[in-house]
Amino acid sequence: MNRDLLGIRQLSTDQITDLLRRSDGYFLQLNSIDPFRKSSLLDGRTVANLFFENSTRTKTSFELAEKRLGATSVNLSMQTSSLTKGESLIDTVNVICAMKVDCVVVRHSSSGVPQLLRKHLPDHIRIINAGDGGHEHPTQALLDAATLQAKLGSLKNKKIVIIGDILHSRVARSNMILLNKLGAKVTLVSPLTLTPKYVEEIFGVRVVHELADEIKDASAVISLRIQFERQSRSLFPNLSDFRMRYGLTPLRIMETNAFILHPGPVNRGVELDNEAADSEKSLILQQVKRGVAIRMAVFEWLFEDK
Amino acid sequence: MNRDLLGIRQLSTDQITDLLRRSDGYFLQLNSIDPFRKSSLLDGRTVANLFFENSTRTKTSFELAEKRLGATSVNLSMQTSSLTKGESLIDTVNVICAMKVDCVVVRHSSSGVPQLLRKHLPDHIRIINAGDGGHEHPTQALLDAATLQAKLGSLKNKKIVIIGDILHSRVARSNMILLNKLGAKVTLVSPLTLTPKYVEEIFGVRVVHELADEIKDASAVISLRIQFERQSRSLFPNLSDFRMRYGLTPLRIMETNAFILHPGPVNRGVELDNEAADSEKSLILQQVKRGVAIRMAVFEWLFEDK
Amino acid sequence: MNRDLLGIRQLSTDQITDLLRRSDGYFLQLNSIDPFRKSSLLDGRTVANLFFENSTRTKTSFELAEKRLGATSVNLSMQTSSLTKGESLIDTVNVICAMKVDCVVVRHSSSGVPQLLRKHLPDHIRIINAGDGGHEHPTQALLDAATLQAKLGSLKNKKIVIIGDILHSRVARSNMILLNKLGAKVTLVSPLTLTPKYVEEIFGVRVVHELADEIKDASAVISLRIQFERQSRSLFPNLSDFRMRYGLTPLRIMETNAFILHPGPVNRGVELDNEAADSEKSLILQQVKRGVAIRMAVFEWLFEDK
Repeated sequence: MNRDLLGIRQLSTDQITDLLRRSDGYFLQLNSIDPFRKSSLLDGRTVANLFFENSTRTKTSFELAEKRLGATSVNLSMQTSSLTKGESLIDTVNVICAMKVDCVVVRHSSSGVPQLLRKHLPDHIRIINAGDGGHEHPTQALLDAATLQAKLGSLKNKKIVIIGDILHSRVARSNMILLNKLGAKVTLVSPLTLTPKYVEEIFGVRVVHELADEIKDASAVISLRIQFERQSRSLFPNLSDFRMRYGLTPLRIMETNAFILHPGPVNRGVELDNEAADSEKSLILQQVKRGVAIRMAVFEWLFEDK
Repeated sequence: MNRDLLGIRQLSTDQITDLLRRSDGYFLQLNSIDPFRKSSLLDGRTVANLFFENSTRTKTSFELAEKRLGATSVNLSMQTSSLTKGESLIDTVNVICAMKVDCVVVRHSSSGVPQLLRKHLPDHIRIINAGDGGHEHPTQALLDAATLQAKLGSLKNKKIVIIGDILHSRVARSNMILLNKLGAKVTLVSPLTLTPKYVEEIFGVRVVHELADEIKDASAVISLRIQFERQSRSLFPNLSDFRMRYGLTPLRIMETNAFILHPGPVNRGVELDNEAADSEKSLILQQVKRGVAIRMAVFEWLFEDK
Repeated sequence: MNRDLLGIRQLSTDQITDLLRRSDGYFLQLNSIDPFRKSSLLDGRTVANLFFENSTRTKTSFELAEKRLGATSVNLSMQTSSLTKGESLIDTVNVICAMKVDCVVVRHSSSGVPQLLRKHLPDHIRIINAGDGGHEHPTQALLDAATLQAKLGSLKNKKIVIIGDILHSRVARSNMILLNKLGAKVTLVSPLTLTPKYVEEIFGVRVVHELADEIKDASAVISLRIQFERQSRSLFPNLSDFRMRYGLTPLRIMETNAFILHPGPVNRGVELDNEAADSEKSLILQQVKRGVAIRMAVFEWLFEDK
């Protein structure tokens, strides 16, 4: 049986800890301005990046991870693909895999696509979920945890506040599951209309609807992007109201020592004011760097001899 | 004089046999789940993939063949290129070649574009036709023949049935020419409105308009894709009627031992029912794998010292 | 302090001469039909091509230069990027650079974007301007100079005529600055409506508005592309009138020994008639080849130990 990364849900705490630890060496190299020593770990391996949803930053992060490990990397921007000719998703991916692809990185607007592919692709093809609908985005949660651990050490009993549109956010879901497994105390702050039902029971988190003093004693806050492209705007009144209630404004930043994370791209002046995005507490670019390191660690783990 | 692959028409039977034979070693490697041992055959060579018609699968197949042979591969999706700025086709391709490109892989909606480029590009640039209008698609015919030979041995006097829209199909044309050269007995089954005139005399094939018992004694059947994007739908009455008359339905599949090929993407429920596409007799994914192997063989042949 | 190539303006005459000289060895190799010996100069380096304006030929030229020097090359066609999600330009580029990108090649429709990035990116990131609005296009001017020098030797006191739409042309601007530094005598020939104000004083060039006898005694003429996509057509009466007044027609070509350059893509029958574009005096494809060589030289210069 080969390994896959379908979601954080399927990982044990030990596996998560192992992946975070593996990423550290890569991160050190990425943080240097010297030339990067390419690895030969994936020599002779082909990775296909199948982005049915467009994402320049995540696709580039995966592509760089692959190339730096020596893989042959092919990008298939599937909006323009044969899907438009009426072929089914499974047929398309099977065809790509028949060209001797060893690993598929898939992003899709429908929840569950990576699991669906797992059922229909040959066993030896590794699958990485790069974001499926409102379901999971496991490499994002791993890179967030790596970023947090580097600053906070163990996350056990640390208060982590996740702010924003929880309802549409696969980032929030993967983060809640992962932070829970690492023993952190997660508080969600979101408008009532953007909060999934039963989220407390399902994910073991605390939920409040007003930011108020929540971030004062937090170790870190993860502010989520408002996904204008995925929701009708009518779910909250307007942007300036959202900012006043949930945005990291200069005043709020002054009242806390919490580190600031955001999966990007940031809507400046909405989720984060400039004073937050550019503050010394902001870890946004660290997250990006950790993202490449985590993806390299995931490939290392997927392709190691067992 | 350097070699080109402009069409099957220009290849001798010996050259076809040679290309099929060359592809076998590559196929074996592609069929393994071990890492692929990259070749250095095209080290220092640059191949430009010029797809004026979009095709994710064929472009990816060429790209992987090139990279696995050590070539530098550049993709130019020419819909967005300077052609939109009014530059002529020949000027555009000449400019790309001046950057020291050694081989051009070209797909274009107009028949004859590869020949046109041959007249205007420097002699040392190799040209591969990846599909030109309704004219030829030589690597598709070669991969079909390689797939058939692997199952049937010599194709001499084997009955091969090609079903569907012959009129618009460069796949059918290249296949008819190639199968003829290898001594197979080709029967076309197509609606009267989708059959080119004089096709019997020109290609030395048998033509019928009803599927009836034609596939019962066939060694293999090549079902063609209905090119909705290239024809007005009015050339045949409707899809369910097409399926009843020409589709590989469960009943028809039960009556024959013929292998099933299709160039893809398949319109399931039209040309092939699921029972055909997913049957043990279906060679569709074998065709895809042979496609990469054939393209590697073509590059090997184009660049060998003579 | 690392080097950048923001514009010709920032280069000394010695630096220009040095870059031209460095490109010669690369050009010789590009001019051969033998395999290109890849260099390892940029091993472990990543170059991101950020084309906010589309340009197949310039992007491909940079991409080939990068790959032939051993760099990892990533293309980000930024029209489809997260900019459409409302992220700021500087945030987007900073995120890309955080993935350990060593050099950014940027093309943008706004003048000054490379300078803006220089202010906001970390010091160790090298920046190459691949064309910014109506401002500069330094690699084009360098490749033009390399092409001219190969035919004319020193450009000192050579008469170079630049024809066409000077007003919208970053190519003209970079060329005027560079040719001035090398001591050439530049004459602009452009319609009054397409001539920038005070251009004589600012760039030390001669300006006339009728072609007449201007090219008879010129060493070379650089004909500019009419940028239909960047101007309202109303700036000059019509195309055939433009051709009669400023086009290189057969008659005009017969009267001169001047070499003919054009940055491409050519509007045949407007700026150049076929007799000019395809004449023995035309250096258009030489320019393209020199373009790859110059870009390789620029990377060599940016990344050398100092």
